[in-house]
Amino acid sequence: MRITALAGGVGGARFLRGLLRHLAVNPSALPDDDGEAQLTIIGNTGDDITLFGLRVCPDLDTLLYTLGGGIDERQGWGRADETHSVAGELAALGAQPQWFGLGDKDIATHVHRSQLLGQGVPLSEVVARLAARWGLPEQGVTLLPMTDTPVETHVVVDDGEGGERAIHFQEWWVRHRAALPARRFVVAGLDRATPAPGVLDAVRGADVVLLPPSNPVVSIGIVLGVPGVRDALRGTRAPVVGVSPLVGGRPVRGHADECLRAIGVDSTSEAVAGLYSDFLDGWLVDEVDPMRDRPGLRLERRPLLMSSVDAAADLAGAALEVALDLRRHRATA
Amino acid sequence: MRITALAGGVGGARFLRGLLRHLAVNPSALPDDDGEAQLTIIGNTGDDITLFGLRVCPDLDTLLYTLGGGIDERQGWGRADETHSVAGELAALGAQPQWFGLGDKDIATHVHRSQLLGQGVPLSEVVARLAARWGLPEQGVTLLPMTDTPVETHVVVDDGEGGERAIHFQEWWVRHRAALPARRFVVAGLDRATPAPGVLDAVRGADVVLLPPSNPVVSIGIVLGVPGVRDALRGTRAPVVGVSPLVGGRPVRGHADECLRAIGVDSTSEAVAGLYSDFLDGWLVDEVDPMRDRPGLRLERRPLLMSSVDAAADLAGAALEVALDLRRHRATA
Repeated sequence: MRITALAGGVGGARFLRGLLRHLAVNPSALPDDDGEAQLTIIGNTGDDITLFGLRVCPDLDTLLYTLGGGIDERQGWGRADETHSVAGELAALGAQPQWFGLGDKDIATHVHRSQLLGQGVPLSEVVARLAARWGLPEQGVTLLPMTDTPVETHVVVDDGEGGERAIHFQEWWVRHRAALPARRFVVAGLDRATPAPGVLDAVRGADVVLLPPSNPVVSIGIVLGVPGVRDALRGTRAPVVGVSPLVGGRPVRGHADECLRAIGVDSTSEAVAGLYSDFLDGWLVDEVDPMRDRPGLRLERRPLLMSSVDAAADLAGAALEVALDLRRHRATA
Repeated sequence: MRITALAGGVGGARFLRGLLRHLAVNPSALPDDDGEAQLTIIGNTGDDITLFGLRVCPDLDTLLYTLGGGIDERQGWGRADETHSVAGELAALGAQPQWFGLGDKDIATHVHRSQLLGQGVPLSEVVARLAARWGLPEQGVTLLPMTDTPVETHVVVDDGEGGERAIHFQEWWVRHRAALPARRFVVAGLDRATPAPGVLDAVRGADVVLLPPSNPVVSIGIVLGVPGVRDALRGTRAPVVGVSPLVGGRPVRGHADECLRAIGVDSTSEAVAGLYSDFLDGWLVDEVDPMRDRPGLRLERRPLLMSSVDAAADLAGAALEVALDLRRHRATA
């Protein structure tokens, strides 16, 4: 059973950890004749940033740390039991920026990755090595960056003088907490990016494709912007089932509402589903959110809050169940 | 009063900290009409190494940390109150090498330096910025790398199969503790190196030149190998006074004896003075070490052990006194 998921950071990681938990504790979660689950995750790299000369991949690292058991549970990102000696000394040296919190263990990941990238190792190979450190292969998980091409999301904001300026997505998200009104997003390099090895095959050859409740604009939306990925989703025989990132029209965490506003889309689960309408087969929305039925889209209403690993497992299990059911119907159609 | 010193790592740093202490507690250490002491240190960069993609300058950092009050006193190198989270995580990632101990605060220095070097900032400018963080200008101290050209000392050792191989100096020094017999030293890049801005002027325009008890082969010897430095020492009007790195024919710390053996020089204070004979005017040797008088060389016998900052201050004060006395004699000659 080949399951493929597109994912951003915290929400995607928690959902996919829930999926692994669901599969582990429910031996009958998958049909007998489908074999063991092989989960391939296509991670967003649009929020990557170079800080202090080190290449930082926040979403990929959140996926690695969460699935590998090394995440800071309270924050949702960064390493558990972290120290901050390096950042303190960088501040003493006057190094900029100081608004991005980098812990020491986390920095080791960035140092190692930067060294490998500097030696010409592609990001996808770097990620494979990091995944090995975190035991992902043993869990049947393959993590792929959406592309090996350096891609960076920038946010166009007012410059305060009637014009506009572009700042890195992380500066907008972390430093300004998305409080600067975004005019639009510019993803440098995305038009020339090629999918990382295995990405298109993972979508085309999947039995099931899942979209976790990741940010539809700056996470899933960026992955969809890699040339070829959206076409692969449109063309895959696998049912594509997504989970709305909104509860009551607001993101559970993060700033998806501000991101949607920037691209002129309502902050509703229905409007988010509209962003995926050309390939979406199933959609999980919260019980509190209004949504009209749409022909060809299987709607599932249930609580979406992932308040614990078990709650995330239930949610992921529900999404998987919808997908498997759609797959059965297709097989018999 | 312009004092210029050539220096390696721990021994040089402790001697020069002693010199600053001596000047601070002895207002009459310098003649009234010479003004305040301006100390320029020309630091060895031959033991620089790139680890995990980060540029590490062990001798320069030991000088910065020691003179800036941030040194690990027990080790003599690295930062006080250090943590080691990054190195632990790099080990978990399987990153090599693991024989070079890098603390977290220390790594921040390397990250910052590597970023600046990557942006095209010359090492001498990087060092100036680091020196500002450590308050060296306020102490009247200018730290210069011997060169901005990347230079790396390698050690040629037996390959165990009748042939030979070259390993980085740090691997020989730190990993093997100089226990692999060295056939010779090869300093990659030294022949094409140019002195960093200010280096030759600091020697030519000095009132006094001091050689701390640094390793005569792989520290002072490397600085002397930068094209132009040795000629500047031969030509300067300043008296050049050195302190032997040997007590009883052995180095107080480090492996100067093994280094001397590799270049075919006896491990005696007299032989070390011979390495400097073309420019040396004064030489401090330990009371226990035999040394014949040499025409034109002022010999001073005294305990050389720098067992405390005060002891280092006494030793540096004695070296300075010899130099000032030689200078007075020249002025009246």
